Amino acid sequence: MSEVLPTIAEVRAAAERIRPYAHRTPVLTCASLDAMTGAALFFKCENFQRVGAFKFRGAANAVFSLSDEEAHRGVATHSSGNHAAALALAARLRGVPAHVVMPRTAKAVKRAAVAGYGARIVLCEPTLAAREATLAEVVAATGATAVHPYNDARVIAGQGTAALELLAEVPRLDVMMAPVGGGGLLSGTAITVAGVSPNTRVVGAEPAAADDACRSLQAGRIVPSVDPKTVADGLLTSLGTLTFAVIRERVAEIVTVSEDAIVAAMRHTWERMKIVIEPSSAVPLGALLEGKLPAADRRIGVILSGGNVDLADLPWGRG
Amino acid sequence: MSEVLPTIAEVRAAAERIRPYAHRTPVLTCASLDAMTGAALFFKCENFQRVGAFKFRGAANAVFSLSDEEAHRGVATHSSGNHAAALALAARLRGVPAHVVMPRTAKAVKRAAVAGYGARIVLCEPTLAAREATLAEVVAATGATAVHPYNDARVIAGQGTAALELLAEVPRLDVMMAPVGGGGLLSGTAITVAGVSPNTRVVGAEPAAADDACRSLQAGRIVPSVDPKTVADGLLTSLGTLTFAVIRERVAEIVTVSEDAIVAAMRHTWERMKIVIEPSSAVPLGALLEGKLPAADRRIGVILSGGNVDLADLPWGRG
Repeated sequence: MSEVLPTIAEVRAAAERIRPYAHRTPVLTCASLDAMTGAALFFKCENFQRVGAFKFRGAANAVFSLSDEEAHRGVATHSSGNHAAALALAARLRGVPAHVVMPRTAKAVKRAAVAGYGARIVLCEPTLAAREATLAEVVAATGATAVHPYNDARVIAGQGTAALELLAEVPRLDVMMAPVGGGGLLSGTAITVAGVSPNTRVVGAEPAAADDACRSLQAGRIVPSVDPKTVADGLLTSLGTLTFAVIRERVAEIVTVSEDAIVAAMRHTWERMKIVIEPSSAVPLGALLEGKLPAADRRIGVILSGGNVDLADLPWGRG
Repeated sequence: MSEVLPTIAEVRAAAERIRPYAHRTPVLTCASLDAMTGAALFFKCENFQRVGAFKFRGAANAVFSLSDEEAHRGVATHSSGNHAAALALAARLRGVPAHVVMPRTAKAVKRAAVAGYGARIVLCEPTLAAREATLAEVVAATGATAVHPYNDARVIAGQGTAALELLAEVPRLDVMMAPVGGGGLLSGTAITVAGVSPNTRVVGAEPAAADDACRSLQAGRIVPSVDPKTVADGLLTSLGTLTFAVIRERVAEIVTVSEDAIVAAMRHTWERMKIVIEPSSAVPLGALLEGKLPAADRRIGVILSGGNVDLADLPWGRG
């Protein structure tokens, strides 16, 4: 994996490369959420993306960047979430194998989803060491290319294409917001905004309960979260070296959001916009509801990262 | 209320009349629902309509059809659901009063929603007789025009504008489907399809547990449901004289759907399309999942009627 930071040219190349495969997702607005926040919000709906999340953009860019010879040997990862499903689908679209290392304890529904996209599942013990060792074994045995879920320049460039589409439809934003976990979406977004709309400020939003990006920026080095607990289960991971480098250079601010505000923002989005988003997607709106941005920020782009949620286990009470 | 049936010209006039106020809702497709049903489905998303339901179309057409003198005296209804909210918003947009008669037992959240659109709420005893008597009193006292939720030519013409937009975007449908309760949406849809795309068959879908439309067509006269119980709580009402007359003339078939299929269709729509729809909206897809249409029906338009649902009381289990 190269430590050279991706550029706006690579984001534009990614957009061309994935165009035949990815959905151009709609940008939606909502009068009642505008009234609640006092802003004009433009939601880029990656919950409508293939596999239900922006992750397909980065995975597709990585898979379709490979030479035929590399691609023929397949791709591999040890994610068990949206990235695994995204990589599996991208590999299937290119007609090459995908190997996904998952802990034995992964939920059956997640295994079924990834297997449904045609990936080979390799089970391992539920520790990070076992996952990394098993992935290394798979790569050694197959010659597959490992594709990291976020600390990979091709993945970051792919994630930046969501902001590229949003800015093409909605110019002159004061602020562009994205959630931050490992930082692939936020760093791709920041590269795009710097290249296309340099007067727009990029603001990352993360759960206060998993605030490693905020603390890392303050410390000037990566400070990982230790066993964080948050309803935004897509944001548990900590920044990588590449994403930290981009975010330190390009992101104006990281704001942190309470669990209550995340759940309230998610529920408002379902009730008012009539769309299904996962908790991680609700973190930027949660920050706005908590007044974390200055009132002068009027035109705000928000990337809704995904819509994969267990409908039988929603983060609000019954009745 | 006139018993003259509305015409395609009135639907076209309604479309012009409500254009400044109603959303032109998107038509969405979904590869996995197509694969499940073996058809090409085109969903007209009235869950994204103002007040979250197609009802705004008919209410807005009724309110903006009034003369200034009539409008000045206001409008009134005894619905407590989506029609009441729709009439309240349409009246507010015209700047005239709306009076909504509701049973004392109506949920606080429904009263708040209607009051939030600026209507005056008049409470009464929770019987149909009390509701009708109270509405008559309100009309006598204020001179307001009563707008029935479905048995009204202006309302039916307004509801027909959803199908008009769908057919403008997606021609050559084999079938157009809509749910049927009181029949306003289905009869408006049938008038539009007959006028614009006469080779397209119109199929109504209703819960087997509230199958008055099916039985009424068989009997050749209105056979009301008696105290029906269904998860599709927007479809409890029975046909009116006008809607029955249109449906008898223009609708090819009414199919009935089990409760399990309605819930499964609703859940699939949330999971696969990432949109929030209410149970009533899921009835046509439920019929397709149950194989109620011939396999030769390939291109199928489906009107998703609304997205107002209590997120704390969903019709599937937890965990």
